[in-house]
Amino acid sequence: MPDPVPPVRWLDPPEGPAVVLLDQRSLPGDETAVVCRTVDELVDAVRALVVRGAPLLGVAGAYGVALAAARGDHLDTAAAALAGARPTATNLGWAVQRARASYHDAPGGRPEKVAAALACARGVADQDAAASVSMARLGLRFVPPGARVLTHCNTGSLAAGGDGTAFGVIAAAHRAGRLAHLWVDETRPLLQGARLTSYEAVRRGMPHTVLPDGAAASLFARGAVDLVLVGADRVAADGSVANKVGTYMLAVLAHHHRVPFVVVAPTSTVDLETATGDDIVIEQRPAEEVTCFGGQRTTPSGVAAYNPAFDVTPPHLVTALVTERGVVRPGEARGVVSLLGDTENCVKR
Amino acid sequence: MPDPVPPVRWLDPPEGPAVVLLDQRSLPGDETAVVCRTVDELVDAVRALVVRGAPLLGVAGAYGVALAAARGDHLDTAAAALAGARPTATNLGWAVQRARASYHDAPGGRPEKVAAALACARGVADQDAAASVSMARLGLRFVPPGARVLTHCNTGSLAAGGDGTAFGVIAAAHRAGRLAHLWVDETRPLLQGARLTSYEAVRRGMPHTVLPDGAAASLFARGAVDLVLVGADRVAADGSVANKVGTYMLAVLAHHHRVPFVVVAPTSTVDLETATGDDIVIEQRPAEEVTCFGGQRTTPSGVAAYNPAFDVTPPHLVTALVTERGVVRPGEARGVVSLLGDTENCVKR
Repeated sequence: MPDPVPPVRWLDPPEGPAVVLLDQRSLPGDETAVVCRTVDELVDAVRALVVRGAPLLGVAGAYGVALAAARGDHLDTAAAALAGARPTATNLGWAVQRARASYHDAPGGRPEKVAAALACARGVADQDAAASVSMARLGLRFVPPGARVLTHCNTGSLAAGGDGTAFGVIAAAHRAGRLAHLWVDETRPLLQGARLTSYEAVRRGMPHTVLPDGAAASLFARGAVDLVLVGADRVAADGSVANKVGTYMLAVLAHHHRVPFVVVAPTSTVDLETATGDDIVIEQRPAEEVTCFGGQRTTPSGVAAYNPAFDVTPPHLVTALVTERGVVRPGEARGVVSLLGDTENCVKR
Repeated sequence: MPDPVPPVRWLDPPEGPAVVLLDQRSLPGDETAVVCRTVDELVDAVRALVVRGAPLLGVAGAYGVALAAARGDHLDTAAAALAGARPTATNLGWAVQRARASYHDAPGGRPEKVAAALACARGVADQDAAASVSMARLGLRFVPPGARVLTHCNTGSLAAGGDGTAFGVIAAAHRAGRLAHLWVDETRPLLQGARLTSYEAVRRGMPHTVLPDGAAASLFARGAVDLVLVGADRVAADGSVANKVGTYMLAVLAHHHRVPFVVVAPTSTVDLETATGDDIVIEQRPAEEVTCFGGQRTTPSGVAAYNPAFDVTPPHLVTALVTERGVVRPGEARGVVSLLGDTENCVKR
């Protein structure tokens, strides 16, 4: 099997400057690249889910600022467009802001500022990969030998640096011989579980099975799930977790069946400016993602669809939040706040 | 809008004998008929889900016995093939057995026996339609004014006689001006909610919205669901309810959010010979229903899928079981048993 195509990469001149994205919409069937030579092209690609996954959106957004800088675009306008391309993922705004600050704060002329923005983007990518290693190490304690793990959406190397967030823990468990089976929710409407997580699991030789999201409950009833591992797109100050729609269903099922429900996300996902779960803005996606499939209608024409990209899990249903800096119980006072506040990585922005 | 095509009908000679099915697989796009002139053709159509819905499977099965009788097939062999076409729906075996008994018990020669089997099948259809009327009347008490009802799969006139089971209650609530909104789970993998329930809701002018199954949880969290109404494929003697996969998820969510969870099914769905939920045989469907869509793969090739057609909800999560004979609480001693035992309609067989 050839090496996987990197999901986000920077292309230097003379071919570039450009941000090159692996088009995740056509996986697992095709591995095609989308070359974004302007910020508008990158914003469109982010909105269309060519690239997705909260940490990886951060990487793409930071490279987008570098692209704007290299092109000589108005930087703050470009940064605002990038940060607003998807409203729920914290990491996007966080990384864009970092790259923007690097540009403005860099001493010297425009070449030095462009270099600083690009160096910052590369740093975001490297830091994200390092965070995955750290989360995998810290998360492994939750995986018992012979574990049957249930996951949702895609949280692997197509969603974050390195091996990913929740999937990074699962990959570490697989390497450690602890993973008996991985259950993969297909994750409607866009099937990131069926298309992307399964693609990553096949590459790693993991024993796994894909299921309709609604069938997960019967796995819990059968006692076939030992642990739920999911990622996050935004963690509020009160420990509420926004993640791919369907996550809250798993949290309630895990609670009902007394199965640990563990969220794995870097601290760049934590947003202390969002006080509670109710304050999290949930992106509503087009109805057609539900009412059409592969160009074919699945409902009569004109039927409305409820299609939120994310849902919110309250902190008392989260057994643990695993970050690169440590593990907290989000339901405890200062559980999430205790992770932050001491370094430049802080999201107080 | 033209009258709906009946989902199951009998075709007399000279065009028949045949059982004509509306092909539900191609709804809502096309209304095409499948003409079954042999029992084998009908069994194949049942397995392929040309016709589905537990009560309607009973009607189709009874007509299948009449078809075997009219053709002069070996009746018991044909009845066994029909009853075994899908293992979970109680009504199928129940109705086939009724038609078979009518044939054997009829006095006179073969013409009289054939007529008796056909009359029995027509009686099953009529009884089913009458049961829907009764269930709608009894179920309406659970629907408060302004109700926002969540349903799963299809339980309307494409699944049962008359207006259907759970959908029959919803239709009655709509006529009574009590239905503020109907939430329709799309119901993966075969999208009976998106394709069929939505098709029926459009015909009736019901305000409704289709959603991915995994998004239902967020509706509960928002307080946007006042009542869950679902059907059943088999109700065990202990009150456990087998229904379309995803139903148990809704039962747990309803319990967690203190929302009533009401099952609507005729007494022909109750099987006292199945003692508990653990004894219910759950049909496993082909992986391709999950891993392919419209001829397009949704996972890498060779990936396994978990695809049970049904799941089982334990009685303590069921607020009420509405049948044509009355309403019971399945969690109470003799709750389900009290419905049966006094007429020829009893499923003690």
